[in-house]
Amino acid sequence: MADNDIIAGALKQSVLFRNCDDAFLSDLAGNSAVKTTEKGQLLYVSGDDADRFYIILDGWVKLFRETYDGTQAVVDILPAGHIFGETSIFEDDCYVNSAEAVEAGKVISLPLAMLKSHINDNPVFAREMLKSMARYRKQQDQELEHRTIQNASQRIGCVLLRLADQAETGEIKIQLPYDKTLVASRLGMQPETFSRALSRLKNETDIVVKGATIEVDDLDRLVDYSCSACSSEFPCKDIFK
Amino acid sequence: MADNDIIAGALKQSVLFRNCDDAFLSDLAGNSAVKTTEKGQLLYVSGDDADRFYIILDGWVKLFRETYDGTQAVVDILPAGHIFGETSIFEDDCYVNSAEAVEAGKVISLPLAMLKSHINDNPVFAREMLKSMARYRKQQDQELEHRTIQNASQRIGCVLLRLADQAETGEIKIQLPYDKTLVASRLGMQPETFSRALSRLKNETDIVVKGATIEVDDLDRLVDYSCSACSSEFPCKDIFK
Repeated sequence: MADNDIIAGALKQSVLFRNCDDAFLSDLAGNSAVKTTEKGQLLYVSGDDADRFYIILDGWVKLFRETYDGTQAVVDILPAGHIFGETSIFEDDCYVNSAEAVEAGKVISLPLAMLKSHINDNPVFAREMLKSMARYRKQQDQELEHRTIQNASQRIGCVLLRLADQAETGEIKIQLPYDKTLVASRLGMQPETFSRALSRLKNETDIVVKGATIEVDDLDRLVDYSCSACSSEFPCKDIFK
Repeated sequence: MADNDIIAGALKQSVLFRNCDDAFLSDLAGNSAVKTTEKGQLLYVSGDDADRFYIILDGWVKLFRETYDGTQAVVDILPAGHIFGETSIFEDDCYVNSAEAVEAGKVISLPLAMLKSHINDNPVFAREMLKSMARYRKQQDQELEHRTIQNASQRIGCVLLRLADQAETGEIKIQLPYDKTLVASRLGMQPETFSRALSRLKNETDIVVKGATIEVDDLDRLVDYSCSACSSEFPCKDIFK
């Protein structure tokens, strides 16, 4: 498939862009490019002038910040389909976080200027952008809630459920990033805490961990265990890409 | 002062509304009302149909959710000047959280329908709303970062600094809600953890706690201690009402 078709396909699948008219999407795709990323490659650094935003096609991307005493705080680890860097248009055109490819993969690089002018010129799209921000806000509220009231094993269970295809039933498989310490840092856990909590989750729910693949025989059991300390119901209503 | 003047004044001071034209502001104020709240009064409950949003004039308001196993998660505790309930227009017109007056106080109750139609009819205001959402998103990212990398005493110091008038220098006073267990629950800490962490903060920074008032003799010392494990500089750039 030519890059342009790949880009057009990804835009049509994204919640933010899928209702845009074809002329805009084709113009946007024409000014975008598929980029191959290597493991550990930095896409941008916090504070840099922002001119591009990204959609992940393949592989995982880590968003992080560094504190003045040099500690790295992982803000998010995003799988394929997610958009990132787009909110820098509201941050004086600077990136708020740094972004690094966790594994070899592919991203689409898109021009922020076109996103900005489409928001300015098109009230319907401005509302789509507002809805997208509201969904993200709800996710973050939920994340803060979980940090307060879920135990470490429930939080791992929650991450697995959010990565699963929630429309499936019965036996399912969930793919994690190859490096599991990343999942620990995303959850704000020390690696030892993560290990202990994952063991407890395995005992409580009979999930099977094979490298970066998690096999879930009994989805209901994982849901019962993980979602009891959550204010929302399963399936999660706020998952979007 | 008549209620209408109080409402007009509060709108003119809010970052979201201050650039709106006078005709809209006067129309909005005419459809709004000042409401006296009692301690513990529920303003709305999560899941309720949303028709009003609020600006706090006086006193503190707690936003919270309840999980299926009955635990309460405090999402935020907001002081005077803050807007809440406004994002329900992006949530199928339902309140996402519950809101309760922590102390006797006053709020302005405003119609969500007018906010919604102003966003739809006025692209400039839609962009103001987007900026406001982006600021909130940044605050939440910061909060998640702090939960990961700050110790409990630094997180209390951070809350104090965010409640302070950051333009002041030298000796300052900071007002907390009367019930300090609320601050603990906002930080997701057990009351005992909060107590121990506050003692340590007092030792490290020489702040003086007198009931709900915190006296800070040496602001730089509190900043040095609290902000070393943060990716942003003091004064905080993302504080808004």
